[in-house]
Amino acid sequence: MATNMEKPYVVGMDIGGTNTVFGIVDSRGTVLASDSIKTHQFEKVEDYVDAVCERMRPLLEQFGGSDKIKGMGVGAPNGNYYSGTIEFAPNLPWKGIIPLAAMFEERLGIPTALTNDANAAAIGEMTYGAARGMKDFIMITLGTGVGSGIVINGQLVYGHDGFAGELGHVIVDKEGRICGCGRKGCLETYCSATGVARTAREFLVARSEPSLLRNVPAEEIQSKDVYDAAVKGDKLAQDIFEFTGDILGRALANFIAFSSPEAIILFGGLAKSGDYIMKPIQKAMEDNVLNIFKGKTKILLSQLKDADAAVLGASALGWEVKEN
Amino acid sequence: MATNMEKPYVVGMDIGGTNTVFGIVDSRGTVLASDSIKTHQFEKVEDYVDAVCERMRPLLEQFGGSDKIKGMGVGAPNGNYYSGTIEFAPNLPWKGIIPLAAMFEERLGIPTALTNDANAAAIGEMTYGAARGMKDFIMITLGTGVGSGIVINGQLVYGHDGFAGELGHVIVDKEGRICGCGRKGCLETYCSATGVARTAREFLVARSEPSLLRNVPAEEIQSKDVYDAAVKGDKLAQDIFEFTGDILGRALANFIAFSSPEAIILFGGLAKSGDYIMKPIQKAMEDNVLNIFKGKTKILLSQLKDADAAVLGASALGWEVKEN
Repeated sequence: MATNMEKPYVVGMDIGGTNTVFGIVDSRGTVLASDSIKTHQFEKVEDYVDAVCERMRPLLEQFGGSDKIKGMGVGAPNGNYYSGTIEFAPNLPWKGIIPLAAMFEERLGIPTALTNDANAAAIGEMTYGAARGMKDFIMITLGTGVGSGIVINGQLVYGHDGFAGELGHVIVDKEGRICGCGRKGCLETYCSATGVARTAREFLVARSEPSLLRNVPAEEIQSKDVYDAAVKGDKLAQDIFEFTGDILGRALANFIAFSSPEAIILFGGLAKSGDYIMKPIQKAMEDNVLNIFKGKTKILLSQLKDADAAVLGASALGWEVKEN
Repeated sequence: MATNMEKPYVVGMDIGGTNTVFGIVDSRGTVLASDSIKTHQFEKVEDYVDAVCERMRPLLEQFGGSDKIKGMGVGAPNGNYYSGTIEFAPNLPWKGIIPLAAMFEERLGIPTALTNDANAAAIGEMTYGAARGMKDFIMITLGTGVGSGIVINGQLVYGHDGFAGELGHVIVDKEGRICGCGRKGCLETYCSATGVARTAREFLVARSEPSLLRNVPAEEIQSKDVYDAAVKGDKLAQDIFEFTGDILGRALANFIAFSSPEAIILFGGLAKSGDYIMKPIQKAMEDNVLNIFKGKTKILLSQLKDADAAVLGASALGWEVKEN
């Protein structure tokens, strides 16, 4: 991280379908100030960028203005690192290819880099979190979907087009569940929070035993309900995690054959379901990994605090931005 | 490639279970002289290394001795680039961890680097072949087994332990064929030459139609027989390639989600089965790849000549060796 006294801060921004959060971060990974804005209220991207900048300027002034900022990192769905654009992002209101990094640079005078949110999380983990000092690791984000950021030789893997690292869309069962991407059997149809809820609904129909989950209307079941039931000793709920962890662990075994990472770091609500999910993940991974890799790759939990993680992850990219 | 006038050559060596071939190569990728020796006749690795060096010295003398050599690259099964060792290689006569690079360095006075054969092939392709100028590509070798060498950001992927890139052992079907590695459903049980022969035997039992392959005793069928039959219009033989290409294409679609390579380069006998295998590979890859990657990754054939490929690939590593 190239910090210096003249430009001691970075800005991190995370653009989600619902909220955009941003903050000013120092070199130790402390979020000094932050704010947020609703993403979806702006039909025109120009209005959105103007509004974000208007909210950001007072924060910047508190810390000496944009001259004190080394760079800004933005995490956004379908973010292309090479071009600084977001491209055809299905969950954002703006269509086509949007040169978002350039738009912020112009308005704020801060060099800006952009990538997708899971890549930003990986850089955040490498800069401030569980992957400090690691040169080879894979970050897996288990949220509404499954995202990933891959680091090899100390560098984030962007691929030839800027979009590498879509491990949530590795197909794990060619006759499997329909995915939002239009294909079948993607990892994220099983191992996201949504996937866990889907498994719960399937299990409740396929099995006849009693379960606390039968008290929740089927369409309203969330992965949190499954966790709560598992903690209360509900066997069906525990089996849902077993099933989910087994699929994820097998997928991780295949990922290890690709890049032989020192660690796989899990981030997101599901990862916090404790041993209910971690034990089956670990077991399926070790049972299915090629002999030469056995016992070598650690599974770790993210060390970024939830509330700060999105801003911190994106901000880490700010340290690496090249000035024009 | 850091060539210079004082040390204008490299040595390439490929260690196979049966033969060890080695040669002197110039910066344009011409194999100037080569020789070979039977690997399996040496029970002690010291005797083997001594014998190779004895055969290599006259070649070196022809080109001005080891002072003219920039470095030596060795491709070997289970080769670890970081340590220069081969580790527990099942098809070689020497057990445990063998410091092969150091042994050659000591005897020949040439800085030596070592990696597995598929990684060597990838570096060869990047230096002299189809991947010149590419920074992101995947090399897949389709031989007795399936090997791979992955290049990201212009660097070979070795992983944290030196063994990354075992894509032949990605599990494509958890209830699939038994693999030599002790697990089930590895890609190489389907997409190697051996895998194709296995598919032929299965198809001949499962289907009752006539086929030219019924003229070959089942246990003797080789992938070459399947190719010859396919060329003669044999439907069953063509279906074998269809089946094989479909599995490989689906696997490639998943690999693209990992590193988004500019190209996937196929090497080995099977890759030369023309449209019989290339069309189903291409179709399955495009049908199964995530939308964002569609139409972006080329499938190419290796441009290294068969006879020279092993020596050339390994030699390319010689240009990158650091002197001690």
